[in-house]
Amino acid sequence: MKWSEISLKTLRENPADAEMESHRLLVRGGFVKKLAPGIFSYGFFLLRSIRKFENLLREELSQAGCHEILMPMVQPASLWKESGRWPKMTELLKFKNKNNHDFCLGATHEEAVVDFIRNDIKSYRDLPQSVYQIQTKYRDEIRPRFGLMRGREFIMKDAYTFDLDREGALASYERLKEAYNNIFKRLGVDFTVVKADSGAIGGDLSNEFQVLAENGMDEILLCDSCSYSANAEAAPLVLPENTSVWTDVDLEKFETPNLKSIEDLSKALKTPASQLVKTFFVKFQNEKDKWKEACLILPGDREVNLIKAKAVVGATGEVIPLTDEEVLKATGASPGSCGPVDLKMPVYMDKALKFLNSFIVGANQDGYHLKNVVPGRDFNIEDEADLSQVGAGDPCPECGKKLKLSRGIEVGHIFYLGQKYSKSMNLQYLDDNGKSQFVEMGCYGIGVTRTIQAIIEQNHDDNGICWPTSIAPFHIHICLLDPEDEGLSQWVEVYKNSMQKMGFEVFIDDRKERPGIKFKDADLLGFPLRVVAGKRSFENDEVELFVRSTQNKLKFPLDQALSESKKILEGLGE
Amino acid sequence: MKWSEISLKTLRENPADAEMESHRLLVRGGFVKKLAPGIFSYGFFLLRSIRKFENLLREELSQAGCHEILMPMVQPASLWKESGRWPKMTELLKFKNKNNHDFCLGATHEEAVVDFIRNDIKSYRDLPQSVYQIQTKYRDEIRPRFGLMRGREFIMKDAYTFDLDREGALASYERLKEAYNNIFKRLGVDFTVVKADSGAIGGDLSNEFQVLAENGMDEILLCDSCSYSANAEAAPLVLPENTSVWTDVDLEKFETPNLKSIEDLSKALKTPASQLVKTFFVKFQNEKDKWKEACLILPGDREVNLIKAKAVVGATGEVIPLTDEEVLKATGASPGSCGPVDLKMPVYMDKALKFLNSFIVGANQDGYHLKNVVPGRDFNIEDEADLSQVGAGDPCPECGKKLKLSRGIEVGHIFYLGQKYSKSMNLQYLDDNGKSQFVEMGCYGIGVTRTIQAIIEQNHDDNGICWPTSIAPFHIHICLLDPEDEGLSQWVEVYKNSMQKMGFEVFIDDRKERPGIKFKDADLLGFPLRVVAGKRSFENDEVELFVRSTQNKLKFPLDQALSESKKILEGLGE
Repeated sequence: MKWSEISLKTLRENPADAEMESHRLLVRGGFVKKLAPGIFSYGFFLLRSIRKFENLLREELSQAGCHEILMPMVQPASLWKESGRWPKMTELLKFKNKNNHDFCLGATHEEAVVDFIRNDIKSYRDLPQSVYQIQTKYRDEIRPRFGLMRGREFIMKDAYTFDLDREGALASYERLKEAYNNIFKRLGVDFTVVKADSGAIGGDLSNEFQVLAENGMDEILLCDSCSYSANAEAAPLVLPENTSVWTDVDLEKFETPNLKSIEDLSKALKTPASQLVKTFFVKFQNEKDKWKEACLILPGDREVNLIKAKAVVGATGEVIPLTDEEVLKATGASPGSCGPVDLKMPVYMDKALKFLNSFIVGANQDGYHLKNVVPGRDFNIEDEADLSQVGAGDPCPECGKKLKLSRGIEVGHIFYLGQKYSKSMNLQYLDDNGKSQFVEMGCYGIGVTRTIQAIIEQNHDDNGICWPTSIAPFHIHICLLDPEDEGLSQWVEVYKNSMQKMGFEVFIDDRKERPGIKFKDADLLGFPLRVVAGKRSFENDEVELFVRSTQNKLKFPLDQALSESKKILEGLGE
Repeated sequence: MKWSEISLKTLRENPADAEMESHRLLVRGGFVKKLAPGIFSYGFFLLRSIRKFENLLREELSQAGCHEILMPMVQPASLWKESGRWPKMTELLKFKNKNNHDFCLGATHEEAVVDFIRNDIKSYRDLPQSVYQIQTKYRDEIRPRFGLMRGREFIMKDAYTFDLDREGALASYERLKEAYNNIFKRLGVDFTVVKADSGAIGGDLSNEFQVLAENGMDEILLCDSCSYSANAEAAPLVLPENTSVWTDVDLEKFETPNLKSIEDLSKALKTPASQLVKTFFVKFQNEKDKWKEACLILPGDREVNLIKAKAVVGATGEVIPLTDEEVLKATGASPGSCGPVDLKMPVYMDKALKFLNSFIVGANQDGYHLKNVVPGRDFNIEDEADLSQVGAGDPCPECGKKLKLSRGIEVGHIFYLGQKYSKSMNLQYLDDNGKSQFVEMGCYGIGVTRTIQAIIEQNHDDNGICWPTSIAPFHIHICLLDPEDEGLSQWVEVYKNSMQKMGFEVFIDDRKERPGIKFKDADLLGFPLRVVAGKRSFENDEVELFVRSTQNKLKFPLDQALSESKKILEGLGE
């Protein structure tokens, strides 16, 4: 493949809307072109990476006993109503077709796959089963960001397992987890597996595969002492058992003019934030699709974790913070002066507050707070639960040592679903006693296009991408500096053909451009091995090989170019 | 691959909604499963065929100098407004996203590809270019039919060429036409290339690739004497030059009670239908998006061709027949008594009417007709043009011999587009004089899923599919009749491994089912070579090979099974 044969213009300037280096590099190298926000065309080079990744996925999933199928992108609302997710999945793009029927674009395929398989599963003899697909999905993100990282349209590999019982389903879960480990290892990327929240997909066991990256969107908690690792949103706050000895002093209102934040209050009262109480108001829809409000209280130095709150308050969809106006309407006071006393909504108390002897809280009257407040005595507690975000320095839930915080990009997510979908969509089989049983399911996703960008985010330098060989669009980039020199061009042709015969893919920059421009573009595109083919060194019987990732520059006699290239590429891994 | 490893239940009953044999076989064999009308999941077997076909496409298109990219399925309205097609493409599924912006699902990608490439083309040095993609498309068919044949969601290969000038574009057109010929030859399908109408895509040169099939939806006209072939909707009616000698007798109204059709009139007046005049009323939108009505008149024995009418009346979208009520409103009479005299809308006359000396037409008064009617004298003619559908027996437009009618399924369509999209979307380059020029384009489509069904429609018998080897899901189907016999099972395993090493794909029916069921399913699934592996013949050192397409049954000693299988499969083609 020669540069002169394809339409590709690299860009010197960074795109204005790119916040992540990997996004900038994808655009500057012509790997992607934006058609609309969060919607990209994949250029010739990127598509080669995608196809290589897809084939690697096929090998590993077929090894894990999964069979490939392909389900539609357009799905009828009826299926989503059957599972109960039609009103809940906020990112579903819904529309009516010409015949006025409700449809959506597939953001995930649990419903579709149950429909696909349910007529084929009659008895226990038809199980276990595992299928997967590699497919274009769409999520109607309100604010798409970071290129392929949080786009609207993206390619995903999703697998689904169907088992007789929980034991079988957990074995499938472990088998797929192992396949995922192999996949990310073969990709040559630095990753970690963490405990995760099951979110809108459901189920009660879930792991994420996170590519470690400084600018990753996810916070990951790791324990150096034991093997614990979790997405920060899913890590429980585990504290020693404790029961507060509540004060018997009566509550007292006091003036706090202009003290609107925990910080203000902490300074004015000379009390650490951890001894103060933060009040947080939210709304959500319950099982009956009714909107409800709730008040969450937690130590002043902690952040609320809305994903934990979702389960605690019993929300079926997202838990949404109240706006300032909504708070005013509900409490009669502005956010800085609100508290749990005399509220008309349920109050949920974070467990960590049980280390206090009394609370200082807003009085629900602007400019006033209450002190000596005792829960149960001065206000009702609906429930006591883990509501806080866990962070660096908090105790490891398994060994109690201090957790470290790292950042990552979620590229894979696996879920043990149990009977969530088989119950709502009636996926049953007859067991060997002729009794109907619900199928046990698992689902397993890898964001194909997102993973590729995550790999770039982890593997680049100031000059461009450093592709791992596993999914590099080409293995070798030849900078043909003097394309009009016949002898040199012939040598390049022979070198290319010989390397291709050995299974390596070769791209030749044969443009009439200055060497500086060719080197800059080769750095930007980032194929693993560069061959600098110039007239002068050719006449000296020499060729320069340059390893993109290490920036290692090596000179060899021409007749060693093939063997040395092979050696270098094999040394770089798959 | 073994049957026991996959979830597949074949069906004995035909699906109620399948009108075509290929559709029935796809459903009965579990190749497809309907998710919604016109929307199918592709099962494990069909996906293997699709992938093989895709790889064949990649080989031939890359050979023809095209580079693969992948464009989005979701496209912004802005692009379609730029090209002017937003209001015109009736099958576009349009919707608003959460941010209230207009989008559609890509039904074709001329707009997207121009946007993809326009920043990369600056000068004549950046041309020519050719790209293609294999992608899932969506057309919001009001009445999807025939399975994958006229579905809503389908896989398509679409290619686009960009050239400096018309000469270059026509050379690209010929190059892609040749590639298409190679593709359909390699598939092993009986096809023909016909002249076609350019429809909503545009341009002035277009060919269809038609798979010949008795139940095909398209009428194809073929000339045995010369090489002429065309889609019947695109064939011109070429008649000898003629000028009517119009009568000078005055027109006369006469009673025709209960004569409502050309047939009635022909019988009553003892005049052949060809000597009578048929009147046809239509409505359409013009350049200014205004709805207009028109009257078309043609010989009583001819059918109107609305695609020809579209160009004649200057419609921008479809030309739609008026309903009976609309006719009554426009003429004051019911359809059987209408005619061109004293109408308030323009009248277009078919050229074939110039063989008459006067017309007999409806009087626009129920129960009356007019005779001795002379166009120009008794009513105005807006235009005289070719408005009739050409059929069997009509003269070949090239050699004048009689045309034959055949039926086909359109599987590929290629268009020379000229500057249609480059002008509306401003795709220009600087020529070697530094002058701006519009790029010349071509576009080229193959319906991947539709072609596969067309191949089945052409290659099946009463018992099931007869896959050509090119895209058969597996080459070999082993009916393992006694799966519990260890010796036999071992032999099958060795046979399978040896055939796989030779590059053939083997599927084993290892179910505990009766031989009759296994043979029926093998017939239905239709892989090219069947191996009947039963205990009894195994003990006699024999194996039966069965060729699905010819029903040829052959017995061989076990030690010849491999060599004979190879010979048979190679004899069946690619």
